[in-house]
Amino acid sequence: VESSEANLRWANNSLTTNGAMRSRQVVVVSFVDGGAGMAAGTVLVDCTSGDPASSRRIAARLAERGIAFLDAPVSGGVVGAEQGALTVMVGGDEATLARVRPALERFAKKIVTCGPVGAGHALKAVNNALLAVHVWSTAEGLAALERAGVRADVALDVINASSGRSNASMNLFPERVLTRAFPRTFRLALLDKDVGIAAEVAREQRVPAPMLQLTAELFTVARRELGELADHVEAVQLVERWAGVTIGASAIAASMPAASPEPALPPLDAAAQADATLEQPL
Amino acid sequence: VESSEANLRWANNSLTTNGAMRSRQVVVVSFVDGGAGMAAGTVLVDCTSGDPASSRRIAARLAERGIAFLDAPVSGGVVGAEQGALTVMVGGDEATLARVRPALERFAKKIVTCGPVGAGHALKAVNNALLAVHVWSTAEGLAALERAGVRADVALDVINASSGRSNASMNLFPERVLTRAFPRTFRLALLDKDVGIAAEVAREQRVPAPMLQLTAELFTVARRELGELADHVEAVQLVERWAGVTIGASAIAASMPAASPEPALPPLDAAAQADATLEQPL
Amino acid sequence: VESSEANLRWANNSLTTNGAMRSRQVVVVSFVDGGAGMAAGTVLVDCTSGDPASSRRIAARLAERGIAFLDAPVSGGVVGAEQGALTVMVGGDEATLARVRPALERFAKKIVTCGPVGAGHALKAVNNALLAVHVWSTAEGLAALERAGVRADVALDVINASSGRSNASMNLFPERVLTRAFPRTFRLALLDKDVGIAAEVAREQRVPAPMLQLTAELFTVARRELGELADHVEAVQLVERWAGVTIGASAIAASMPAASPEPALPPLDAAAQADATLEQPL
Amino acid sequence: VESSEANLRWANNSLTTNGAMRSRQVVVVSFVDGGAGMAAGTVLVDCTSGDPASSRRIAARLAERGIAFLDAPVSGGVVGAEQGALTVMVGGDEATLARVRPALERFAKKIVTCGPVGAGHALKAVNNALLAVHVWSTAEGLAALERAGVRADVALDVINASSGRSNASMNLFPERVLTRAFPRTFRLALLDKDVGIAAEVAREQRVPAPMLQLTAELFTVARRELGELADHVEAVQLVERWAGVTIGASAIAASMPAASPEPALPPLDAAAQADATLEQPL
Repeated sequence: VESSEANLRWANNSLTTNGAMRSRQVVVVSFVDGGAGMAAGTVLVDCTSGDPASSRRIAARLAERGIAFLDAPVSGGVVGAEQGALTVMVGGDEATLARVRPALERFAKKIVTCGPVGAGHALKAVNNALLAVHVWSTAEGLAALERAGVRADVALDVINASSGRSNASMNLFPERVLTRAFPRTFRLALLDKDVGIAAEVAREQRVPAPMLQLTAELFTVARRELGELADHVEAVQLVERWAGVTIGASAIAASMPAASPEPALPPLDAAAQADATLEQPL
Repeated sequence: VESSEANLRWANNSLTTNGAMRSRQVVVVSFVDGGAGMAAGTVLVDCTSGDPASSRRIAARLAERGIAFLDAPVSGGVVGAEQGALTVMVGGDEATLARVRPALERFAKKIVTCGPVGAGHALKAVNNALLAVHVWSTAEGLAALERAGVRADVALDVINASSGRSNASMNLFPERVLTRAFPRTFRLALLDKDVGIAAEVAREQRVPAPMLQLTAELFTVARRELGELADHVEAVQLVERWAGVTIGASAIAASMPAASPEPALPPLDAAAQADATLEQPL
Repeated sequence: VESSEANLRWANNSLTTNGAMRSRQVVVVSFVDGGAGMAAGTVLVDCTSGDPASSRRIAARLAERGIAFLDAPVSGGVVGAEQGALTVMVGGDEATLARVRPALERFAKKIVTCGPVGAGHALKAVNNALLAVHVWSTAEGLAALERAGVRADVALDVINASSGRSNASMNLFPERVLTRAFPRTFRLALLDKDVGIAAEVAREQRVPAPMLQLTAELFTVARRELGELADHVEAVQLVERWAGVTIGASAIAASMPAASPEPALPPLDAAAQADATLEQPL
Repeated sequence: VESSEANLRWANNSLTTNGAMRSRQVVVVSFVDGGAGMAAGTVLVDCTSGDPASSRRIAARLAERGIAFLDAPVSGGVVGAEQGALTVMVGGDEATLARVRPALERFAKKIVTCGPVGAGHALKAVNNALLAVHVWSTAEGLAALERAGVRADVALDVINASSGRSNASMNLFPERVLTRAFPRTFRLALLDKDVGIAAEVAREQRVPAPMLQLTAELFTVARRELGELADHVEAVQLVERWAGVTIGASAIAASMPAASPEPALPPLDAAAQADATLEQPL
């Protein structure tokens, strides 16, 4: 379907995901063929969560044929999509954006011009990478506290009134982790992809980013261990598995008499110590 | 000065820091001598930012002499202290807390019982470690975006309306980094200490915490490189130095014609490539 | 049993481990009771793989009662123990060592004086931590090469003639990984303990050591995932599991017609891409 | 210059590096123009240290014009080049290699067929990445030991007779670090490039490689801090700077009376502790 305004390639389709019907959604059509069927003068708007280097390559190839390109990932989730209240992060030049702005405004409440082609993708990837950082690091901290005898609900109350708070600690952990609900709203596999893109942006730009790189590795591990269908917050369960503790467990136990925190791993016994002398590889 | 309520050791002193006069502040007295002058029945309340293992050791020794111990680090900053509106995180048993609660209520608005001795220290350390994670990871992301041509103010606007937001992105970066103000309100050296404590809590509890451990290392490096007087947010400047970019620079440049993003490092030139053949250590 | 030379506490016992009978082995006796039964003038020699901070604490307490302490972990493995050809790394003062040297020489071929109390333990821990670094990093590299179509035996041939070689690449990988033998000679749990000690030495000394700290975390994860009985080289199998590849697999496949390297994970399909638009948490 | 055997593009040039005259050296000519002047039937042999993804792209483009491609990085250093005793790691198909083998044998003592196009580059990058891992991790360990009072020469003696040894500990540290010679034989900037390539191979192959990724970041930091001319072993000096210690310092001090190990950083003083209460950002 082409919009009359600017030959914008989009699809006012009604995709069904998770049983929900949604409309007013822009997706990119026929990307695989490199825009083979598009006429010169078309503007291709990529609303997926792509990587900037590919976006720049695609834009350069399309430009040879007179086709303009914008990367325009969106935020706002399912609710925003249904209400036409998404935020669009646009990478590309202003003149091209002007041609498709009316089409974007059908579903976007806010249109942010981020920079050159790829800038929209880069910004979305970095935002999601920070989400990943917060989910994982908060899980590490709460798992350690849980084992040290600090209830996770108490810890979150304090953190959320303090300097260590984040969207993850304020919303995801109370609603999804402490409740053990872990609804599947955004796949871990997709977050893994986004963190990887952010890590690649940093490397491509030669910005040492040890934390983003480590986070990329940890989420790839989590994806392997938890599978393609896991929700992104389920990464917390891998941290719990490695820690041998369930975040929030002592809060539940607190309602029972003589509750005690998760016992620590038993110390290596004397036999193991003696063995060490014999086994050592030094 | 001893409180009449419970032999609480505290000091209603008037410390002057940063030129401000403050009262109604509890600090621990004569810790170095192991509470040598304290009578049995005293409660020692440690309001500093200590480490749980030491707290437990101290508590055990004091208990031999009939002295009770609570760790009770506070939050709320200078303003909270002046207004008697601090939050106190208490580690120790409820009965002991009951004895000193009236004294604590003189300066605390909220008293949170966290768990056994050390729990207050552990919780405070983890909160501060998450702050450190957020400051550093947000700096990495914004530095990469800056080099990719995305203005930091635009990036923060999007992130702060999205899933990647944290206290650091919502408050510290707009107020202190984009403005280049970097006021000295909380020393990097102290945050380094706190992250180290949180990392030790995780290790002691046998919780694999690669992100907290890495953050501990990075802040120790930052402390070495930036000195004992640097503010904790100045860690961002080390990320910038390593990245060869100033976060927010393109926002300033945007007001000039023909602004361009920070140039990437030049590629290794052909000579260097040829050299590689000769130099290689393989 | 006390040696006549210097009241050295040791046990000329015959421990049976892995079905082998061994003698001439020094182990520390009755450590748990803090040397309660030892007379003043005794020298306590700790030949286990301990941590320096504990060693210093123990030494200080023993000194109050006139008992000297040396940490003296050994290397050389089972064969060295059987042949009386171990290397002993001694922490403690020279005068104390002089008193027990004859006893140590019964089983040690080489006695190295490392520094003050704890120095022997520190050196042994660092050596073992480097072993752990080499095992894990070589596994990462070979797993990546395997998936890129480079046979592990070819890769090891080149690496072992080049600058990237280590004891791990020269001995452990050819003998234990490529053969899939994975004999159980030194437990992963003990290596995890040693890496943790090395990481703590670095932190205690305020030496930023991001690689040692990360290695400590990875081996703790491996211990959790692989269990208390796994051999230290089995950590390679966790790297393989995360990578979705078996190191050496293409070497085996090479003997069959039309061998192909391990296929990469399938790319996220178009449906997943479309989903991304709906699911995204930004 | 074209070889008569197989239209191999090479240059029998006499490059002068480090004041040495060398001949019999194959380098790639006119890469920048994509082999514009080459005839169909030519084989392009890339002996530099490149990245596999680029190699595959180049090979695909050249193939369209009937030009074959091999990646063939070499090892053996300056001495090997002078003596015609290099090892060549070849990526590409056997038939193509057969055509250029005589030309390669002029300077190569050993020709290793590694796998498909890019395999030679991948293997060389992984070898060099392991070198980087060993240099950095050994520096961390020795810096910690130095501060703990263990002389680096003693530590290296033990490690090099034990399981933690590597090419770095056996050759580079004794010859270049303990002597403080730090000769400039292979630039840090080039090693940084190689580690980055290895890290990208792992990511492209979806192999979680936290240690290689971290090493890539650390060497990029080191390159920024130490400059384009620094030797790769000078990375040790950055570890020393962060640690506040010189590896080998106590060995030198040992020749003087009353030598003592490098003092630890002073503990935070009481004033700083008290300050913490006021400054804290929680």
